[in-house]
Amino acid sequence: MIHTKNLVSFFLETRSHTESLCKPLEIEDYVVQPVIDVSPPKWHLGHTTWFFEEFILKPYKPGYKLFHEDFAFVFNSYYETVGKRVVRSDRGNLSRPGVTKVYDYRHYVTNEMKEFISSEAINEQILSLLEIGIHHEKQHQELLLTDIKYILGNNPILPVYNDKFLENPVQNEAQQWIPVHEGIYEIGHASSDFCYDNELGRHKVYLHDYEISNKLVTNQEFLAFIEDGGYSKFDLWHAEGWDWVQQQKITQPMYWHNIDGNWQQYTLAGLRELEMESPLSHISYFEAFAYAQWKGYRLPTEFEWEAAQHHFSWGDRWEWTESAYLPYPGYEKPPGAIGEYNGKFMVNQKVLRGGSVATPVNHTRPTYRNFFQTNLRWQFTGIRLAR
Amino acid sequence: MIHTKNLVSFFLETRSHTESLCKPLEIEDYVVQPVIDVSPPKWHLGHTTWFFEEFILKPYKPGYKLFHEDFAFVFNSYYETVGKRVVRSDRGNLSRPGVTKVYDYRHYVTNEMKEFISSEAINEQILSLLEIGIHHEKQHQELLLTDIKYILGNNPILPVYNDKFLENPVQNEAQQWIPVHEGIYEIGHASSDFCYDNELGRHKVYLHDYEISNKLVTNQEFLAFIEDGGYSKFDLWHAEGWDWVQQQKITQPMYWHNIDGNWQQYTLAGLRELEMESPLSHISYFEAFAYAQWKGYRLPTEFEWEAAQHHFSWGDRWEWTESAYLPYPGYEKPPGAIGEYNGKFMVNQKVLRGGSVATPVNHTRPTYRNFFQTNLRWQFTGIRLAR
Amino acid sequence: MIHTKNLVSFFLETRSHTESLCKPLEIEDYVVQPVIDVSPPKWHLGHTTWFFEEFILKPYKPGYKLFHEDFAFVFNSYYETVGKRVVRSDRGNLSRPGVTKVYDYRHYVTNEMKEFISSEAINEQILSLLEIGIHHEKQHQELLLTDIKYILGNNPILPVYNDKFLENPVQNEAQQWIPVHEGIYEIGHASSDFCYDNELGRHKVYLHDYEISNKLVTNQEFLAFIEDGGYSKFDLWHAEGWDWVQQQKITQPMYWHNIDGNWQQYTLAGLRELEMESPLSHISYFEAFAYAQWKGYRLPTEFEWEAAQHHFSWGDRWEWTESAYLPYPGYEKPPGAIGEYNGKFMVNQKVLRGGSVATPVNHTRPTYRNFFQTNLRWQFTGIRLAR
Amino acid sequence: MIHTKNLVSFFLETRSHTESLCKPLEIEDYVVQPVIDVSPPKWHLGHTTWFFEEFILKPYKPGYKLFHEDFAFVFNSYYETVGKRVVRSDRGNLSRPGVTKVYDYRHYVTNEMKEFISSEAINEQILSLLEIGIHHEKQHQELLLTDIKYILGNNPILPVYNDKFLENPVQNEAQQWIPVHEGIYEIGHASSDFCYDNELGRHKVYLHDYEISNKLVTNQEFLAFIEDGGYSKFDLWHAEGWDWVQQQKITQPMYWHNIDGNWQQYTLAGLRELEMESPLSHISYFEAFAYAQWKGYRLPTEFEWEAAQHHFSWGDRWEWTESAYLPYPGYEKPPGAIGEYNGKFMVNQKVLRGGSVATPVNHTRPTYRNFFQTNLRWQFTGIRLAR
Repeated sequence: MIHTKNLVSFFLETRSHTESLCKPLEIEDYVVQPVIDVSPPKWHLGHTTWFFEEFILKPYKPGYKLFHEDFAFVFNSYYETVGKRVVRSDRGNLSRPGVTKVYDYRHYVTNEMKEFISSEAINEQILSLLEIGIHHEKQHQELLLTDIKYILGNNPILPVYNDKFLENPVQNEAQQWIPVHEGIYEIGHASSDFCYDNELGRHKVYLHDYEISNKLVTNQEFLAFIEDGGYSKFDLWHAEGWDWVQQQKITQPMYWHNIDGNWQQYTLAGLRELEMESPLSHISYFEAFAYAQWKGYRLPTEFEWEAAQHHFSWGDRWEWTESAYLPYPGYEKPPGAIGEYNGKFMVNQKVLRGGSVATPVNHTRPTYRNFFQTNLRWQFTGIRLAR
Repeated sequence: MIHTKNLVSFFLETRSHTESLCKPLEIEDYVVQPVIDVSPPKWHLGHTTWFFEEFILKPYKPGYKLFHEDFAFVFNSYYETVGKRVVRSDRGNLSRPGVTKVYDYRHYVTNEMKEFISSEAINEQILSLLEIGIHHEKQHQELLLTDIKYILGNNPILPVYNDKFLENPVQNEAQQWIPVHEGIYEIGHASSDFCYDNELGRHKVYLHDYEISNKLVTNQEFLAFIEDGGYSKFDLWHAEGWDWVQQQKITQPMYWHNIDGNWQQYTLAGLRELEMESPLSHISYFEAFAYAQWKGYRLPTEFEWEAAQHHFSWGDRWEWTESAYLPYPGYEKPPGAIGEYNGKFMVNQKVLRGGSVATPVNHTRPTYRNFFQTNLRWQFTGIRLAR
Repeated sequence: MIHTKNLVSFFLETRSHTESLCKPLEIEDYVVQPVIDVSPPKWHLGHTTWFFEEFILKPYKPGYKLFHEDFAFVFNSYYETVGKRVVRSDRGNLSRPGVTKVYDYRHYVTNEMKEFISSEAINEQILSLLEIGIHHEKQHQELLLTDIKYILGNNPILPVYNDKFLENPVQNEAQQWIPVHEGIYEIGHASSDFCYDNELGRHKVYLHDYEISNKLVTNQEFLAFIEDGGYSKFDLWHAEGWDWVQQQKITQPMYWHNIDGNWQQYTLAGLRELEMESPLSHISYFEAFAYAQWKGYRLPTEFEWEAAQHHFSWGDRWEWTESAYLPYPGYEKPPGAIGEYNGKFMVNQKVLRGGSVATPVNHTRPTYRNFFQTNLRWQFTGIRLAR
Repeated sequence: MIHTKNLVSFFLETRSHTESLCKPLEIEDYVVQPVIDVSPPKWHLGHTTWFFEEFILKPYKPGYKLFHEDFAFVFNSYYETVGKRVVRSDRGNLSRPGVTKVYDYRHYVTNEMKEFISSEAINEQILSLLEIGIHHEKQHQELLLTDIKYILGNNPILPVYNDKFLENPVQNEAQQWIPVHEGIYEIGHASSDFCYDNELGRHKVYLHDYEISNKLVTNQEFLAFIEDGGYSKFDLWHAEGWDWVQQQKITQPMYWHNIDGNWQQYTLAGLRELEMESPLSHISYFEAFAYAQWKGYRLPTEFEWEAAQHHFSWGDRWEWTESAYLPYPGYEKPPGAIGEYNGKFMVNQKVLRGGSVATPVNHTRPTYRNFFQTNLRWQFTGIRLAR
């Protein structure tokens, strides 16, 4: 548990960083929701604010006055515990509250929180909620960036977000297989630092001998899969993945464009030549699995990844694992609304490990478990092979 | 055909009026599309502009330079003849071009048009296209208002558009039945003034004796239908209407709210008490038909309406008729893209006659044929009974 | 109104004819429902029986004992008035009651009816219901054949129903245009013979000069439309028709097969060479309209058809008209369940006139109004042009 | 690997048992497919036959003549490797081939196989295919029963399949928790007996201390969950499960009927009083999970189940586990069509362990891995708790 003083600046930096991510946006960009998985930026701004208001200010700050009666309804995401809410698919249908109003809301709540955190009244339980709130907002910083990329990258005009944004670092090292020996490994969060409930329940797993790649799969390598007809060979795919490929007519990673025979890629810095040596991005689990099949290898489990992660560098792409998102032995769902944070999604999703170029500094860690449905591609997702 | 000089001012007034309708909007309001039938206001601004660019400036003005290459793709509505376009359901997913850019587009095209209309080059054919373009924009002025009403009226915060906007005029006269005698009547546009192609082919119809009401059905009268259980009596409804009522769980006109037993109505002037003596609005054809059944009367045909319309005042509500939207005898679809304006919708829609509080001055006339699918309610639609 | 004695034999012949239509079926053919519009043959057998039980025996025959308590639920079609029913899309999911049981039900009800009709108790009102019941069953005889054709014709094995069944009579006469003069015509049923409520309300219409073809469009002629790319020219189609063609990937009439470049047609007599001089069949209204557009003509209205019908032979195909299915002036919906027969479908459907090779003898007449949604093709529908 | 002589009788007994399961059916029962997951019994009869024809007779038996050219198309299930097929949702739309023809097909192939197996030509590879084919048919015997139950149990008449069929054995012993100690356990098939590919790759897992119930959850116990409002407490459910409950309006296990306040249950022996002490059946994974949450316990993993299974009796219900269906370490997908048997379903499904009253004798074993989507309920699925 960190100190109150540090927490105030951690809190304020986090709040301020969220807003700085929106600097390049035009007002119109804050409003739209092109697909259900992408939320409008102004919704993220409001929702991360509502979290502090709903879970800290309203229950604990004496005399706290709600900024606006209707905002709980507008900015609740999925917490059944705390009442009704705008259905997710309607977030992009709301022009009001406007962007200015949402910033007013943010500043009001930021100031109220600052005052409250600095006060004597704050106890262990509130500190813990505050920490969750800050990490919750950091998580939304990543979503903000990926949602902005989707909003701009699916606009026919393909606007640039920030021409300095570097999505595609080059991996210079040669590809190597890192061998890991059979045995018992400890998995899960160990220290007293912050983590989410789904990382807890540190426990032992037995791993058999395996090898894991030091490098992520590159665009170049994935292009070979495409050119070999990987998207039309049913035997490389799960039955459900094959249906998805056929129905959605998927033929390449999201944001790739073949313009007159020339491969390009939309990035937050605009449309660019496809960088062949950079790590592949924006593929679904289905594609990750099919690629591994084609290559004759497989995806690692999340346990294999965690046990080996100190041997390679990671953090540019969220890496799909073969593991389903399940509770660790001894997982306990926290009581109340906070308990809706993770546990209720533990079915029919896959674990991703690592982090990405969109992840805020210090937000991820070796035990961090990200999770998505198997068809989603709008995150900076990549592939690391095992065998 | 009117004079060029008058046309310039007619054109400029029309362009300027469209923009004045948007004055009360916040930028965010220009962007959203809460249902497929409602287009974002900025799309209307761009689309009415594109119409002049595509059909007049591009083909006829020497040396005309497109404002932006991608705008034809963004702002085409449904003209298959002139190329690909953003699918209708995606209009609300586009944050760019932004509102400022769209206004720049408008002003650029308005100026180019002004220069062109005033020039010697303009001939009969271009004048005719210009006239269509102006009337097309007037039609979108009405849609702008009804779409804005939908956008604001479906927001949980229920913002006011303009607190002076009078939607609900009172009809003071007593209800009376106007008798019309059996015989041959002429239907369709006769003068040389502007009209749409679907009004042409003036022709004779034989009408039997009938009576038509001098007044529109009021909110009060429709409330009696609701209170008598009209929405749950299947025998009042068409089979398709009954399915719609059940699936959509329809229990009242659009924009009505029963708040703690008190009936209110969202209007462009905000949420108000339901005005009992005002004409009913925002009902589908299905509801109009069921109401007439319940009352023991029927809806007039569009021919009955046209033959009797000089006997009553109209123009506050678009009035559903029993007539399907079909070509008049001798209807000729104009060649090219302009031919896509009306003819291709002549199936599975109903004719509405009259006009509404949202219709621009001088835009409607006794022969004007509006048309919508039988389930739509977001226009200012009402009921006039016949027997 | 015909005599009781004749009615008994008319009734018995009708009952028996229905069963004879099913002679060529295997038991399995009685059960399936490949699309929602097609009902299983055993459902038709049961439903036409239930009609007599529900509307005549149950209310009027003293001491009548229901054959089976659950059959009203199983065999009601859409009469909301008389209670709950198996949803339409579930008809093909019911293996029980089995075919033998359904025949037992038929024979039980036929005998009870025979006894009852011959009795003294029968009055005018019951006679009228009996007449409706018989015509109702005749209507289902036609549906039986078209549904059987769908069931067999969509089976990969393409079984023969009856190799003597002649679907495709040749029209030997040369094509001619029959001119009809402008004036007032009387439309609707006039005599005291049986007709449906939707033919009543005989009334005057004013028709302008027109010409109507003496012949139906042939397969040969429609093939020219296909070969000219008619299915891919958007300007020939209604907007809604064009969406349908694209989404359903329609490229030819139902039951046509292009096998190695050779056109064949599934008929009730099995797969055959496409008979070029025979009248086209199994096309939707959308296709009929597009064909007429392509040819430079149009479809007749139902009034034009009725006014001219004595000048040409008809009865091989149900002929799409341009008329929407609407009530005639003075149409009165009968009270009670019988009132659900026609009136509630008078929206978003088109009128067909004529009859078909599947229509029972004496079932159609010049004033008969058939009606279907604009996309349906499983009936023997054809095209007669007007201009 | 068992002896050829035994194999012949094993094969013949299996073929004959399949047919004996269909004895109580009427012909109509063989044909219908009320939901996509349920196949028509005649399809099972044909498909299990096609398996032997396609994978053994066609490639290996010299001079083998196909029974019918179209049957591969009709009876292929999902093997992309071996060509096109009737889409799954269309299985119930095919009245032909009729039941008699399908039995002819069975007998033809059974005889050809008998002749072939007894011949000298048969080698190890063919024996292995034969063994798979037999086990494949046994698997379909179970599906036959569960599909028949669905077909009859969703018919409004609720026909009896076999009034001697005992679905609901009573568990007499008292409930107890069986403790299992922390440590390394071996998981997966070990002997040389037949097993499926997904059981192979015997490997070590580390299990922490846990306890597992000796008994399955009873109807009585689940009724307490219902009566406590379990189906309307969102916090007991996964987010996806909660959506499912709401959309499908699920309020009780499949086949339960509350008739005038009295709980009854449709069984293969007909509608019966709910047997309170019998194991619960026909619940989805979502319901199993919610029940465990409500009770304060959890579902076992498949590894916990396998490690403890010799301590309790099992085989009446397939038991949902918390484990996602994933490949074991070292899993190898067999080459060719046989490789499509298991591997391609290893995503977004849950493992079930045990067996059921519908499972053929000797078909299941401690390492057997069944798997279904999380919403399915038509199998005899139950709950065993762990903690």
